[in-house]
Amino acid sequence: MESRERFAYVNGELIPESRASVSIFDSAIMTGDTVTESTRTFNHAPYKLREHIERLIRSARAAYMELPWVADDLERITLEFMDVNADLYARGEDRWITHNLSRGPSVTTPPELRAGLGFGQPTLMIFESPMKDVAGSWAEDYRQGVHAVTPTTRLQPAQSLDPKIKNRSRLAYNLGVFQARTVDPRAVVLMLDTDGNVAESNAANFAIVTRGKIRTPTTRNVLPGISRATVLELASELGIPAVEEDIQLYDVLTADEAFFTSTPYCLMPCTKINTRRIGDGLPGPITARLLEAWGRQVGVDLLRQAEALATSA
Amino acid sequence: MESRERFAYVNGELIPESRASVSIFDSAIMTGDTVTESTRTFNHAPYKLREHIERLIRSARAAYMELPWVADDLERITLEFMDVNADLYARGEDRWITHNLSRGPSVTTPPELRAGLGFGQPTLMIFESPMKDVAGSWAEDYRQGVHAVTPTTRLQPAQSLDPKIKNRSRLAYNLGVFQARTVDPRAVVLMLDTDGNVAESNAANFAIVTRGKIRTPTTRNVLPGISRATVLELASELGIPAVEEDIQLYDVLTADEAFFTSTPYCLMPCTKINTRRIGDGLPGPITARLLEAWGRQVGVDLLRQAEALATSA
Amino acid sequence: MESRERFAYVNGELIPESRASVSIFDSAIMTGDTVTESTRTFNHAPYKLREHIERLIRSARAAYMELPWVADDLERITLEFMDVNADLYARGEDRWITHNLSRGPSVTTPPELRAGLGFGQPTLMIFESPMKDVAGSWAEDYRQGVHAVTPTTRLQPAQSLDPKIKNRSRLAYNLGVFQARTVDPRAVVLMLDTDGNVAESNAANFAIVTRGKIRTPTTRNVLPGISRATVLELASELGIPAVEEDIQLYDVLTADEAFFTSTPYCLMPCTKINTRRIGDGLPGPITARLLEAWGRQVGVDLLRQAEALATSA
Amino acid sequence: MESRERFAYVNGELIPESRASVSIFDSAIMTGDTVTESTRTFNHAPYKLREHIERLIRSARAAYMELPWVADDLERITLEFMDVNADLYARGEDRWITHNLSRGPSVTTPPELRAGLGFGQPTLMIFESPMKDVAGSWAEDYRQGVHAVTPTTRLQPAQSLDPKIKNRSRLAYNLGVFQARTVDPRAVVLMLDTDGNVAESNAANFAIVTRGKIRTPTTRNVLPGISRATVLELASELGIPAVEEDIQLYDVLTADEAFFTSTPYCLMPCTKINTRRIGDGLPGPITARLLEAWGRQVGVDLLRQAEALATSA
Amino acid sequence: MESRERFAYVNGELIPESRASVSIFDSAIMTGDTVTESTRTFNHAPYKLREHIERLIRSARAAYMELPWVADDLERITLEFMDVNADLYARGEDRWITHNLSRGPSVTTPPELRAGLGFGQPTLMIFESPMKDVAGSWAEDYRQGVHAVTPTTRLQPAQSLDPKIKNRSRLAYNLGVFQARTVDPRAVVLMLDTDGNVAESNAANFAIVTRGKIRTPTTRNVLPGISRATVLELASELGIPAVEEDIQLYDVLTADEAFFTSTPYCLMPCTKINTRRIGDGLPGPITARLLEAWGRQVGVDLLRQAEALATSA
Amino acid sequence: MESRERFAYVNGELIPESRASVSIFDSAIMTGDTVTESTRTFNHAPYKLREHIERLIRSARAAYMELPWVADDLERITLEFMDVNADLYARGEDRWITHNLSRGPSVTTPPELRAGLGFGQPTLMIFESPMKDVAGSWAEDYRQGVHAVTPTTRLQPAQSLDPKIKNRSRLAYNLGVFQARTVDPRAVVLMLDTDGNVAESNAANFAIVTRGKIRTPTTRNVLPGISRATVLELASELGIPAVEEDIQLYDVLTADEAFFTSTPYCLMPCTKINTRRIGDGLPGPITARLLEAWGRQVGVDLLRQAEALATSA
Repeated sequence: MESRERFAYVNGELIPESRASVSIFDSAIMTGDTVTESTRTFNHAPYKLREHIERLIRSARAAYMELPWVADDLERITLEFMDVNADLYARGEDRWITHNLSRGPSVTTPPELRAGLGFGQPTLMIFESPMKDVAGSWAEDYRQGVHAVTPTTRLQPAQSLDPKIKNRSRLAYNLGVFQARTVDPRAVVLMLDTDGNVAESNAANFAIVTRGKIRTPTTRNVLPGISRATVLELASELGIPAVEEDIQLYDVLTADEAFFTSTPYCLMPCTKINTRRIGDGLPGPITARLLEAWGRQVGVDLLRQAEALATSA
Repeated sequence: MESRERFAYVNGELIPESRASVSIFDSAIMTGDTVTESTRTFNHAPYKLREHIERLIRSARAAYMELPWVADDLERITLEFMDVNADLYARGEDRWITHNLSRGPSVTTPPELRAGLGFGQPTLMIFESPMKDVAGSWAEDYRQGVHAVTPTTRLQPAQSLDPKIKNRSRLAYNLGVFQARTVDPRAVVLMLDTDGNVAESNAANFAIVTRGKIRTPTTRNVLPGISRATVLELASELGIPAVEEDIQLYDVLTADEAFFTSTPYCLMPCTKINTRRIGDGLPGPITARLLEAWGRQVGVDLLRQAEALATSA
Repeated sequence: MESRERFAYVNGELIPESRASVSIFDSAIMTGDTVTESTRTFNHAPYKLREHIERLIRSARAAYMELPWVADDLERITLEFMDVNADLYARGEDRWITHNLSRGPSVTTPPELRAGLGFGQPTLMIFESPMKDVAGSWAEDYRQGVHAVTPTTRLQPAQSLDPKIKNRSRLAYNLGVFQARTVDPRAVVLMLDTDGNVAESNAANFAIVTRGKIRTPTTRNVLPGISRATVLELASELGIPAVEEDIQLYDVLTADEAFFTSTPYCLMPCTKINTRRIGDGLPGPITARLLEAWGRQVGVDLLRQAEALATSA
Repeated sequence: MESRERFAYVNGELIPESRASVSIFDSAIMTGDTVTESTRTFNHAPYKLREHIERLIRSARAAYMELPWVADDLERITLEFMDVNADLYARGEDRWITHNLSRGPSVTTPPELRAGLGFGQPTLMIFESPMKDVAGSWAEDYRQGVHAVTPTTRLQPAQSLDPKIKNRSRLAYNLGVFQARTVDPRAVVLMLDTDGNVAESNAANFAIVTRGKIRTPTTRNVLPGISRATVLELASELGIPAVEEDIQLYDVLTADEAFFTSTPYCLMPCTKINTRRIGDGLPGPITARLLEAWGRQVGVDLLRQAEALATSA
Repeated sequence: MESRERFAYVNGELIPESRASVSIFDSAIMTGDTVTESTRTFNHAPYKLREHIERLIRSARAAYMELPWVADDLERITLEFMDVNADLYARGEDRWITHNLSRGPSVTTPPELRAGLGFGQPTLMIFESPMKDVAGSWAEDYRQGVHAVTPTTRLQPAQSLDPKIKNRSRLAYNLGVFQARTVDPRAVVLMLDTDGNVAESNAANFAIVTRGKIRTPTTRNVLPGISRATVLELASELGIPAVEEDIQLYDVLTADEAFFTSTPYCLMPCTKINTRRIGDGLPGPITARLLEAWGRQVGVDLLRQAEALATSA
Repeated sequence: MESRERFAYVNGELIPESRASVSIFDSAIMTGDTVTESTRTFNHAPYKLREHIERLIRSARAAYMELPWVADDLERITLEFMDVNADLYARGEDRWITHNLSRGPSVTTPPELRAGLGFGQPTLMIFESPMKDVAGSWAEDYRQGVHAVTPTTRLQPAQSLDPKIKNRSRLAYNLGVFQARTVDPRAVVLMLDTDGNVAESNAANFAIVTRGKIRTPTTRNVLPGISRATVLELASELGIPAVEEDIQLYDVLTADEAFFTSTPYCLMPCTKINTRRIGDGLPGPITARLLEAWGRQVGVDLLRQAEALATSA
């Protein structure tokens, strides 16, 4: 397939990805002033797209960003954009869609360019990736689990920049990522908040299982992830007790199981923390049940898909 | 003058500003992963350019960013770039130069585009603005002083993202700016840190004068501004006592004078805080002496220049 | 009516309000050393008076204040005092009763005056206000909602002065009030705690409604308001889910509805936060149901009463 | 002497102390909304009265309180008031003068009483005490030193209510006082701030001496006491090194000497902390030198005066 | 009985207690590097021994300590050790068993002694005490309740040393104990965390009863005590509501009942806090029901046993 | 040499090290209740022994530990103990002496053993190590510099356990050490405090050099190290500016030089932080000058001695 280049969407225009760009004066670059979402498809259908779009609008609202669109508009724009690239995907091939929405050209924009660059209007970027480009080592990771590492850097507190605003001012997370990689180049960062509570990864929520109960941090200081919410719903359906509460590194080191949740991979077993095994060092039974239930709900065997993606990549 | 469009510099290329752009996959957009500097000229000569470049390198280092340049390279690139636009400036017309340096194409970059977009290399953007585009209401502000407003949002602590890394993940500051504008649309935000100490503005340091002594926050939690350092040097030359120490809102409300320091305007009187007059509500004598000494040092009457800029804008 | 002056109660004596006063040596003035309650009537009957008195006793206990009364005494004193003024109120006219209870004459009291001023005994002040003097703009506010503004000043933490002690050392709240008014002279202050969690107003609790669920801060750092408790009871009766949890400014900016709870007005819609609309900017349906249920419980149409009060004032 | 009752000053009127009072609706009582100063005389002359009045004005300013007076007015009012009582004092008898300045009648004031009670104007109370009424056990304390006890309650942080605003919302301090008295009924409370640094007493600053150097907390979180400043000046004159810095309980437990500073007693040795001796448990030599130098400066032997006061009381 | 000396267990050897010792180079002494448990018997049977051993393993895991044993091993070793001393106990005499498990000889151990001292292996110490040696004043305390005192020292936060690791680096607790004893030599310390929340004693958890509901701090910052868990189970069986939540000193001062939970005494009424009565100053009815239910569960009348122990001691 | 075993000192007795031990009931083991010092010799003379002993006494005092000795006693005991082992050291061979001083037998000590074990008296342990046993890889480290790694675990705050009390409740530090070793098995831990400021290592102070100025954390939250003080004295003598101030990870990542200070090795270059080079990755010139000056002061070439020790070990 993919006989031509994929399009990206930038401010109403469809542009081949290699040329999809944003003015260097845009507030996305000048102040990291961007809210964002990413969504994936299962069997070509975007999963909970409306929820993602509504959260995008909430993020914009909390960032004091005025939008010329309501949710219906953004949903329609997204679906139309996806249609444009639809022919590039084989049957059964899923994709990942990213929305980046900045406040538009910054105050640094030269006066003579403002009209042309849309000053006063937000900049909306949408692009998508075939799952095989995103999947990386998922097949192995689903089977072995990933390695979480807690860095020195603390997540900024909600009174500075609330992680509930899903945003692109993420240098603090990057500092965490680079520190985590000093322990293991493939480590997934697990950030603590300034009180020392376990918070989230740079792009995922986190949960542990302690004696049969799922425990995940409250949303006081983490993104209210849509995958996180899906896990809580699945747990409820499966009769697995689950709580949202403050957890500490002790709880992770002594947990029976652990996993990350994130849109692209749904739920990823985590079997090591700071080089120590979690539980017996293998993905655990509750993690497996959740992953299987999720696959059932969306009609995709997630592990099998990851294996197929690994082959195709 | 300005008979043709100004150039910007993006990764080694000179591009007319209206088309100067960055891939939507760049980490500048994807994670606000950019360190930055801005420098101005006095009588066409860039002021303390070397210090700005060295601080840029320190910011990159603290952000775990590997650079293919040393300070000499960046200085030469900057000066060469400035030469290209030199003919656009009239005699006596000064400019403001911005460096934005991102970690380059992010991991989201499609594999097939990585080589083309320079994956693995930082993205260096340089652009400049004639001072008249930056100056805004400076002429009036130098005479009347600006209005500082403290928002609800607190500056993120250094253990999350140290403001000493001059960076572009600035959404937290923007939240402060928008809150400050609910008090006065022309307000300058003055952020407190999470302990409630006065910290900095979104683009400037801050100082007060109490019974003849200049007091400015330590660099524990603020940018070690080059203009701030210049003021401390000038104070020393003028025999005005100056200390770096924690100050609180009480100190601002009861100060005799206050001012912001920032590269473009050097030093700006601040005469109101949260709608209350500071001192007698007019720029104070020590502020005036510092501003005059600065102008003498660089051979530019800053107020007169601001007035000229206001006319030409 | 009101053909003669209302009485106040001060330390066992009934005194016309214009002359009701307290020695300048009292600890109420010297150290803000006062615990307090306020209660209102519905159809002339004081609402939950016993609960208010018991909380007053708890506040005194937590302030290490010894009382010569038990709850029965204080209840009787209050009812007897109300009887004295009863003839001043027309049928259907309600009132607001305030108890201020200080530790009595302070150590600054001149030795020769101590016996006369009751040194060693608390000072009990009780006064009441006709609802029309308290109601202000309630009729409009019930219909339009009030504007909440978060100030820079943070609520003092419980380890300094626990807001569960309902007390009169409230200068910190006043600082918040004055800052909030720099945004809107009619703003209601909404204070955050030192961790940045939403806490309370200077004289009210706060709650939001998010997708059908009422959410209000825990009592870790706010007054356990009796009106707040009433709302939680009404919600339970109406089958509206409600939780006590930490909430942040993000949650308010993205809420569907919000309201304050306080004894005089029971429950007041809040439709703006920091100049931004909450939900669609109008009092919401759950707020309306709660207000109506409250009115039903006490046999008073609160909106209609507010309108009547506005006319009579 | 004292053949007639002393006068107090309340809002422009001279009133015998036994009847000097304030409306129960005043914001002094309703919200602890009072700023304050206290000054003493040496040989009948008020000590640094102008500095006290200027600090009162700064406190009012930081509390967003508008005053109808400038410093000259308040100084004149004070001196005239003192003249009225002058005949009550014997030669050599000193006095202590207190200013309490509230925001005036609160919003709770009944509408019909507002004009009469001066609504919209601050309430100014001034009263004085003969030193013998204030001195208590000073004679013994100067010789033996007092016992400092650190309570559980922490001083509220400056971001809630800055102790630099000398104010009367002091319930938090009272909680500390009552806790300290559970250790020793005569204990002087020594409060820590929320970071655990030594801060101040409820009515005094604190300092220690470690190997010849005076160390006292910075004004980040304590009142910038005028007696504290006097001690720093005297130390400078005497060639005793002195620093303002964060100190912790460790430093007090291992200090060689310690003392409190406060207007009425100037400087009081502290020889026990939490039941443990400081140094050898006796007032130390540097404390003695400072006390003597102070006495010399003001022409009063402070210990001898305290002994005389003890006799006369 | 007790005709010969009790044995202790040290690293696989049985040693008379008077000679049971550990090398001065052991990390137990050199860095307080010890995890621990204590268990008691009821009618000679160790209570929840397996749970204690599993928690010991979790503590070791969270302390990055590698163990050569699994739970079965430690359980067997413990039971065998108890058998050795069994003949020393009369019928009905219960005992208290302590496990101390250090990381073994420290890096300070002289190279020539390392092999002999077991370098690289943990040091396991087990000893036991007849309940009569532990019981002290329990008989009186069960009847009168103990006196809790909150010290100045704050419990270290979980991000420094998580109290969920039951460990022997307890100097911070000892500082609290000594401060509490300045109020009452028999006081039980009740430590607050650095946010001012009530946490735990140096060797016990704490709970209060407010209007019929048991409230105990969450495990965010306290040991997840096995006795604490037992109380929560008993409460559930008895239909007494119970919550885990942050509580503050206010809640203790205004509680109806309070109690400590700890392995040796199970549950101990607390009837005073900082010299103030809790409730009516006597052990309360819910405390009594829990104590009785516990006794029933284990077949021991705890009060009667305490009385017998007091006599035998 | 060393033809017989070295002695250790335990509570007045000289015991061969292999048998030097402490009762398992001692508070050193039961609660980490030990204060400590370590001192080294230069050319056989103990360096600043008196200062170490005075700090030990201060630590004991701050830990509420009563001692039966004054400084003279402890100095004499130490010197006498050193004499006993003196014959084991060759000319030029230096040693390291450790004092551990616990509160003595804990309350867990069986009543019948208390008298025998010295209940009520502290336990004093003194032992020494030949420098060659301590030196490890110093020769290489002096030349290459060590690798500092900042862990996730934060140093406990002074309000919990002040690091100025040099003590043996060090499990929190050990957690840091083990985390640091996940980055590099030879890493030296560099702990941050709970505000994110750079604090200290588990057994050393830390300093950096920025543009010619030595910067080291204040003693607010670190041990006031005697080697740290020596460096500040040497810097003063050498005319190198030095400040005590809060520093952050940014400052270390961008420093020109860094080093640790500790009694055994005096001053150790640190050339990597979190896998990143500090400066050019080699020990810097100011570090070298300090090391050389120190050696000159004590008459020992520290690098040469380290090389000799490496050979002899």
